Amino acid sequence: MKQIKIFDTTLRDGSQGVGISFSVEDKLKIASALNDFGVSYIEGGWPGSNPKDEEFFQLAKDKFKNSKLVAFGSTRKKNSDIRKDENIKKIVSSGAKTVCIFGKSWDLHVKCALKTSLKENLQMISDTISFLKSKKIEVIYDAEHYFDGYIHNKNYALQTIKVAIDSGSDYICLCETNGGVLPSYIEKIVKETISLFPNIKFGIHAHNDCECAVANSIIAVQSGCELVQGTINGIGERCGNANLCSIIPSLQLKGKYHCVPIKKLKEITTLSRYVDEIANLIPNDCLPYVGRNAFAHKAGVHVSAIKKESKTYEHINPKHVGNKRNILVSDLSGKSNIVSKADELAMDLEKDKNLHGIINVVKEKENEGYQYENADGSFYILTKKVENKYKDFFTLKSYRVSVEKNADGSIVSEATVKLDVNGKEEHTVAEGEGPVNALDKCLRKALLKFYPEIKTVLLTDFKVRVINSDANTAAKVRVLIETKDKKQSWGTIGVSENIIDACWQALSDSVEYKLLKK
Amino acid sequence: MKQIKIFDTTLRDGSQGVGISFSVEDKLKIASALNDFGVSYIEGGWPGSNPKDEEFFQLAKDKFKNSKLVAFGSTRKKNSDIRKDENIKKIVSSGAKTVCIFGKSWDLHVKCALKTSLKENLQMISDTISFLKSKKIEVIYDAEHYFDGYIHNKNYALQTIKVAIDSGSDYICLCETNGGVLPSYIEKIVKETISLFPNIKFGIHAHNDCECAVANSIIAVQSGCELVQGTINGIGERCGNANLCSIIPSLQLKGKYHCVPIKKLKEITTLSRYVDEIANLIPNDCLPYVGRNAFAHKAGVHVSAIKKESKTYEHINPKHVGNKRNILVSDLSGKSNIVSKADELAMDLEKDKNLHGIINVVKEKENEGYQYENADGSFYILTKKVENKYKDFFTLKSYRVSVEKNADGSIVSEATVKLDVNGKEEHTVAEGEGPVNALDKCLRKALLKFYPEIKTVLLTDFKVRVINSDANTAAKVRVLIETKDKKQSWGTIGVSENIIDACWQALSDSVEYKLLKK
Repeated sequence: MKQIKIFDTTLRDGSQGVGISFSVEDKLKIASALNDFGVSYIEGGWPGSNPKDEEFFQLAKDKFKNSKLVAFGSTRKKNSDIRKDENIKKIVSSGAKTVCIFGKSWDLHVKCALKTSLKENLQMISDTISFLKSKKIEVIYDAEHYFDGYIHNKNYALQTIKVAIDSGSDYICLCETNGGVLPSYIEKIVKETISLFPNIKFGIHAHNDCECAVANSIIAVQSGCELVQGTINGIGERCGNANLCSIIPSLQLKGKYHCVPIKKLKEITTLSRYVDEIANLIPNDCLPYVGRNAFAHKAGVHVSAIKKESKTYEHINPKHVGNKRNILVSDLSGKSNIVSKADELAMDLEKDKNLHGIINVVKEKENEGYQYENADGSFYILTKKVENKYKDFFTLKSYRVSVEKNADGSIVSEATVKLDVNGKEEHTVAEGEGPVNALDKCLRKALLKFYPEIKTVLLTDFKVRVINSDANTAAKVRVLIETKDKKQSWGTIGVSENIIDACWQALSDSVEYKLLKK
Repeated sequence: MKQIKIFDTTLRDGSQGVGISFSVEDKLKIASALNDFGVSYIEGGWPGSNPKDEEFFQLAKDKFKNSKLVAFGSTRKKNSDIRKDENIKKIVSSGAKTVCIFGKSWDLHVKCALKTSLKENLQMISDTISFLKSKKIEVIYDAEHYFDGYIHNKNYALQTIKVAIDSGSDYICLCETNGGVLPSYIEKIVKETISLFPNIKFGIHAHNDCECAVANSIIAVQSGCELVQGTINGIGERCGNANLCSIIPSLQLKGKYHCVPIKKLKEITTLSRYVDEIANLIPNDCLPYVGRNAFAHKAGVHVSAIKKESKTYEHINPKHVGNKRNILVSDLSGKSNIVSKADELAMDLEKDKNLHGIINVVKEKENEGYQYENADGSFYILTKKVENKYKDFFTLKSYRVSVEKNADGSIVSEATVKLDVNGKEEHTVAEGEGPVNALDKCLRKALLKFYPEIKTVLLTDFKVRVINSDANTAAKVRVLIETKDKKQSWGTIGVSENIIDACWQALSDSVEYKLLKK
């Protein structure tokens, strides 16, 4: 197995993604997770560009055992003395033992962006790398726009990397900065370049503007690159960077390459979701390998085949990447999906005389905007109702929720709930941090003395979606709530034109599921 | 320019995507948009699998001029008479003049899923295609799992397509059904296969389970395929189908291929968003070519280079695909981003003495959870406040919002608002379809007599995001509202622990922007 170095740039290039803003603490958490996962390099930021990154390096220095911490920066300023370059000084004082320096390979950029001579650009590359090597720092040279440069002025692009090699750079990373180069060019240019510089270690850095970043990275490795730069979940500017969560499993499970310790590969799904959580991104469920839908099956014909032989419709065993198969309940699904979903919930519907009735209710509800794919709890309650095995733990008589903002700017959210619990009327009131929180507190307050087991039940996530396409404030909303107790977690759903009522449905299902399962 | 046939399967394979459920009316709308766009084939559904698809074909028959409507179906049932096959009867009676038939190429599937002999499977392929050809129907044969089949039992896989060719199939479409085959294999297998059957027209159908579907499709075309199956935005089961919105621009703008009328390519961004809208999907802003971020720039160094020469950081001109450049305002951005954003809003901040102050306020607000990337209206108001050019059109004294659900199940949402407008107190009350709608109506009621121009202002979209990662019902929420009048549209934002107050902020910004711009 050939060793491929994984160079993670989630904290640097990834943080350029729209909507992403990492605090120093966020960066430390992600770096720590990457170190545990076992990537070779963690690019932490650009110490010269902002104080947040400087602080990160001070705190992260010498902290990680499995991964090398890398500081990013540009070649020195034009027409200046490297020893007086503030940017370079900050890189050195960051304490990073590996530095990634980017320089220009495309003559257009030298002329239009840097506004200097082609010769001075070569000198900038040479001065910067030589200086860092004199400080015993490992240098990875990022040849920015290398592929566009090679296509437009091959000789100059090659000169820039020759200078970097001659100055002692440890790696030459070929960057497809604009993301616009198709795979066939990547293969040709990587092979031609590597053939000219035997015994030099090359890397690839790809962007996803043609949706080819992952393929381009894999092809570059197959063409001789030994280092891959990318980000967790492919986050990054515009359409993102090359997605390490797709590249690593493909190289390791399908190619003959070794990227991370094999037992760590099973943690890649967890890592992917952890980074989304810290970045405050809604996970993309369709992500290969790590997404919630990556091994989801909806078409009845697939579901019945897969139960016979898993590789019929699964390209790998989901366990290898710490993910799992997910049978979806939807209006396209046949009987086998609903039965399989019930299996997951430890219910046996296969021979249930109510199966047909359950399928009909699911279809009806889906027409109204419900979706049970992430709402196991509500699906369970639905089946029990059709089977007449449902027990009424409480009946809502009325609720009232109010939010008042006063002249002094203070906001008060209050909820009252009137329930019938085992024939007794319970009328409670609670204030909360917002209307949903108030309603949640109020419901629990009413039920706790009857059902003390709900004490350990905790809401963990809350999502709101407007589901009408030509949405205005009167459109329907779908609320999904995730709840957990000490043993498990479950999702529940509510749909209504009224956001508060949608929340109420999901909240009450969440408690009912807990009570039903008992 | 070589002609490539685009075969859209959004309505068939795309509808297998998680969370996607098209009504017959949705399907007609999308088919009509695809016909306008000019794809060669529109696969409308599987008439044998459900009544919705049968109805679709009855309504869509003979409706489209630019695109051929295709019905999908499987080979006949094993050990049976093709003339008595219900599935095939429904396909013929759908009236579609082109039919796409899938059959098994992988011996594993014949044995495990079909549970029949390898010989009977060949007979099923042959009988089905011959029968349809005898009805003068154009046949596209989908060789399911062709690549996996070829890798495991090359001879049998080749036999299946030889039978399809001999039975008169017009196209042989090689399907990478499980999405697990890497680009290097695609190239090798497509080239080897095509070399064995000269003068036969081949197609490619790829799935995205390794994030290589687009690259695999492009490579297959470069290796000789003349037809590409895929979906708008890559929707589809698991990780999705090959994304036509990436494949078409890459083939047409970067390869030497012709897919759709060149003036239609400019409508691909609109088409992408239209399909998301109908499918009720939140658009993926990071989609290549068509996403809102595809030409977004955040890093200060990129923004200043791009103002000098656009191709420095843009792989194509966004106009070619009907998209536009988007300069983002974020805490990573330097001065040049804020100035460019202001340019877009027809403001000249370049030499504004308040520029530094504006940057600081933006940073502060972003720390609190605000994001101005899609909230031009709120950004405009913010700059005017810093510049002291802001005029108070009204001041909130208090509001109250209540939602009551009564014993009969009826829900009443009511809002009251107390404003100071030009020294006069306005106190209004309104009911609405939900709390936000009530609040919106109430605000307009209070302002209309002072500012009649808000009459034409209309809310068009409303989005809610929980922004704390360890979110519970007390987490912060971010509300984004899109508003339009007769001339333009604008976004506004609100952030609060209280969803109602976040809505209030976005609603009042929305009206204030309209009044400020006047």
